[in-house]
Amino acid sequence: MKTSLDCIPCFVRQALDAARHLSADMTFHERLLRDVLRWTSEMDLNHSPPVLGQRIHRHLRELTGNDDPYRQAKEDQNRMALELLPELEAMVASAADPLETAIRLAMAGNVIDLGAKSAVTPSQVRQSVQQALSEPFAGEAAALRQALSTAQSILYLADNAGEIVFDRLLIEQLSPPRVTLAVRGAPIINDATLADARATGLDALVAVIDNGSDAPGTVLEDCNEAFRRYYHEANLIIAKGQGNFETLSDAPDNIFFLFQAKCPVIAAHVGQPVGTHIMTRSTGPSGHNKETPHADD
Amino acid sequence: MKTSLDCIPCFVRQALDAARHLSADMTFHERLLRDVLRWTSEMDLNHSPPVLGQRIHRHLRELTGNDDPYRQAKEDQNRMALELLPELEAMVASAADPLETAIRLAMAGNVIDLGAKSAVTPSQVRQSVQQALSEPFAGEAAALRQALSTAQSILYLADNAGEIVFDRLLIEQLSPPRVTLAVRGAPIINDATLADARATGLDALVAVIDNGSDAPGTVLEDCNEAFRRYYHEANLIIAKGQGNFETLSDAPDNIFFLFQAKCPVIAAHVGQPVGTHIMTRSTGPSGHNKETPHADD
Repeated sequence: MKTSLDCIPCFVRQALDAARHLSADMTFHERLLRDVLRWTSEMDLNHSPPVLGQRIHRHLRELTGNDDPYRQAKEDQNRMALELLPELEAMVASAADPLETAIRLAMAGNVIDLGAKSAVTPSQVRQSVQQALSEPFAGEAAALRQALSTAQSILYLADNAGEIVFDRLLIEQLSPPRVTLAVRGAPIINDATLADARATGLDALVAVIDNGSDAPGTVLEDCNEAFRRYYHEANLIIAKGQGNFETLSDAPDNIFFLFQAKCPVIAAHVGQPVGTHIMTRSTGPSGHNKETPHADD
Repeated sequence: MKTSLDCIPCFVRQALDAARHLSADMTFHERLLRDVLRWTSEMDLNHSPPVLGQRIHRHLRELTGNDDPYRQAKEDQNRMALELLPELEAMVASAADPLETAIRLAMAGNVIDLGAKSAVTPSQVRQSVQQALSEPFAGEAAALRQALSTAQSILYLADNAGEIVFDRLLIEQLSPPRVTLAVRGAPIINDATLADARATGLDALVAVIDNGSDAPGTVLEDCNEAFRRYYHEANLIIAKGQGNFETLSDAPDNIFFLFQAKCPVIAAHVGQPVGTHIMTRSTGPSGHNKETPHADD
């Protein structure tokens, strides 16, 4: 997906947010913002939004020498989500359809996104949970169940810190031994890295790899070889968040995307109102020869 | 009020909106946006947001030669509001307190603002009316009633097209012969000009002047001498909209501001949530010797 002109004001806002995470000095915020405006005026919009976000945030980190401005925010988000975990686990345990509830909760957790918004409060997270549990469950649910019934290997692409605690609920429903969880290779906004997978205990449940990239999405040519091998060999990929959708939605692979549509550009792309939880598939021809045969084939 | 760094992403979004009002050519939108980004990177933030908005929109008009990109939008908004007028008039006529209802409706009309948002739908306008009619009526209502009871001359500073139809309801409650309505001196975003006052019949109800300026607010040093005379001689000024608040909130004059707080910067400034309808006064010492004596003095 190319970058829309509507993404530009959002990049500028993101840069200002990042500046505030980096320092309390308002002169510094202004200098950084002016620099990003100049820089943004020359961006190549043929790239996807995560590629441009990656460049902007790299540039901010170079300017400041701080390689993880959202560290504190991510720790707070992991803690907030872990506090909710027992309640969320009880919802899945008591559900008539635990898989469906876990999918809904995984989508709900995608609200914890500091790329699309400047802050996320516990009450917004609770509201997202309530909304995800009560929204019509359309999308590709039957196709996902079918794919899950036969997949021998599943690659789960995480999105944000905090959110990965919600992902835990879904991964538990997927028979964890066949699942590999992939996180970003380096800090970018509040996206989950190995540190977050460890802080939330995901590494004790499932194999965790990092993709080697600091893009807030999955830019395959920027990922390490190990990740690319998992990506190409997996029978099924579950990808969380707008960034993974923006970078992989056209991919010719068997990918199911779960996210909340948080901006007008993405909402228009999927034909749903802003705020809707979305389950959709990549538009490319799926699976090739790596897809396992259906049970009824 | 100085410009906040948080205003910058909003200026960028505004410029993109304006580009789309100017042309359907996406290459043109991109060129304009890149130009505005470069240009914004060098702005002097000591000015108020309307001064910077004025400069950005002047620059866009210079680049394109189109001096009124929002003409069609303003005509549509005037028409939409005129269609609502009989219903709104009935609300005032049947109200226990017609002045209060007219003030509430005048605040509700301020939702028709293409500076703060990219578009305004009739359903948003109806929602704003319902909200304004049911919100707690706090602010400076008693002080405004007191000021109205003695003022011999009232200057009413309009804000947007469409919105001025709502202003009509309040002006009718103010004894129109003592009221002068001031509009912008030249097109800027969807702010009301003489053309809009005429199109909505306000000129038949009340004396209308233009302030000689193309700022989306009231920048006194940029206004013409006739306007400044009205401004300084009025016993009472009613100023609609965020732009007039941003430019006059610190003025040492007897000004009552009525608007909807549409952005986080203004909402934080007045200490209310985004979306709240606000009635507040200028912070300077009010009135000087031009204020008429109170009835009980």
